[in-house]
Amino acid sequence: MSALKVVLISPRNPLNIGAAARAMSNFGFSEMRLVNPYAVAFREARSAVKAHAVLEQAREYSTVAEAVADCALVVGTTAIGPRVLEHPLRRLEYGGKLIAKKMGAAPVALLFGSEKFGLSNEDMSHCHWVMRIPTREEHGSMNLGQAVAVCLYEIIRRPAAAKAAPDFKPPAEVVHTERITEFLETILDRSGYVHARVEGSTRMKIRRLVRRLKLNAHDAEVWLGMLRQILWKLAHPE
Amino acid sequence: MSALKVVLISPRNPLNIGAAARAMSNFGFSEMRLVNPYAVAFREARSAVKAHAVLEQAREYSTVAEAVADCALVVGTTAIGPRVLEHPLRRLEYGGKLIAKKMGAAPVALLFGSEKFGLSNEDMSHCHWVMRIPTREEHGSMNLGQAVAVCLYEIIRRPAAAKAAPDFKPPAEVVHTERITEFLETILDRSGYVHARVEGSTRMKIRRLVRRLKLNAHDAEVWLGMLRQILWKLAHPE
Repeated sequence: MSALKVVLISPRNPLNIGAAARAMSNFGFSEMRLVNPYAVAFREARSAVKAHAVLEQAREYSTVAEAVADCALVVGTTAIGPRVLEHPLRRLEYGGKLIAKKMGAAPVALLFGSEKFGLSNEDMSHCHWVMRIPTREEHGSMNLGQAVAVCLYEIIRRPAAAKAAPDFKPPAEVVHTERITEFLETILDRSGYVHARVEGSTRMKIRRLVRRLKLNAHDAEVWLGMLRQILWKLAHPE
Repeated sequence: MSALKVVLISPRNPLNIGAAARAMSNFGFSEMRLVNPYAVAFREARSAVKAHAVLEQAREYSTVAEAVADCALVVGTTAIGPRVLEHPLRRLEYGGKLIAKKMGAAPVALLFGSEKFGLSNEDMSHCHWVMRIPTREEHGSMNLGQAVAVCLYEIIRRPAAAKAAPDFKPPAEVVHTERITEFLETILDRSGYVHARVEGSTRMKIRRLVRRLKLNAHDAEVWLGMLRQILWKLAHPE
């Protein structure tokens, strides 16, 4: 993770520097670089926030060239749509993947421009390519801290996690589902819900209804306990 | 997009409400709901930020139940790892996909807890399941505005965009790449770089070198122009 250098260019707002550092810490990145930050903002950010470790190690540079000198890949970020860029423009979904891959082999710099102007053409000329966060055209410009968070999330995102079903509680065994069906049927029968004429179809209806609940083993037990109690009460009124 | 209701529960900081609204606007969502917000914070957020349209339409509720009453799916968010939750826990990569799918059919509520405490157990009991942003265990808790941005990004994320190669400038035709090779060879020859003894292997080396540049059509022209000029200067010293 230390292969990724998050480079903030001319940040002006201490809250944004702090937020960027916090997102880095949340997602496991440690290397922050600041090019020509507003000194007061950097001082304030350092004294403030929750991402202490990141901010303490953050290093200052006076030019983009120096900040990215040791990197093998330099990527700029922009929220602007396919405007006339002199650079290849890649959507975050694709670019993030390329960055994650490259990080395994060599240091990568990810550049974020200042809050007000974004990256200048001069800044971008240091980049191999530019990455676009897929925001709306009508409101493309993101808050700096949020842009950093979204980019880093895409980089640490695990595509496999989008496919794998999560680890749930085991489903109820059929013997319990069937027990619930029987209890419910008896209760409804004793409550006068079931008419003799349609008894057979009602039973099937209830069975399907209970199956559709897709109960897990634990919940099936809870339901059995509740139904058993209701059944008891119906048998022992007064 | 209006099918997704972003529900902030007891937000305290106007900057966070504003940041959440801005991320919503960036990613094309319009429906914000606030449960029991700190009144001053809501007023300040309204008067401030760049996501005016979202904040103007934002509605206040006094309970979670009321805020999610019209929704068919209610999802909570947490940055906390697999602690003992009474709810199915899904990673954002997977949960975001389920939400995007459900939004096509029915309103979905996405709940974010207060800055300090997150969602309470009471809040979570209104949820069908809970979604976890895959942050580090050692520093799981995200800034509210950043958490909203990351979740919304995952929902609007287009998996296909991660696969499709972007629309680049067309690659240089081989006739131009070969021309560059020839020019470069002649220049190097005239500069004394090529030794007669290894001329053949040098030519092949240069050819491979130029191919590896993977020039696009436009850049190939620029290189041809530069090489032509160098060649001219070598022929006309003084």
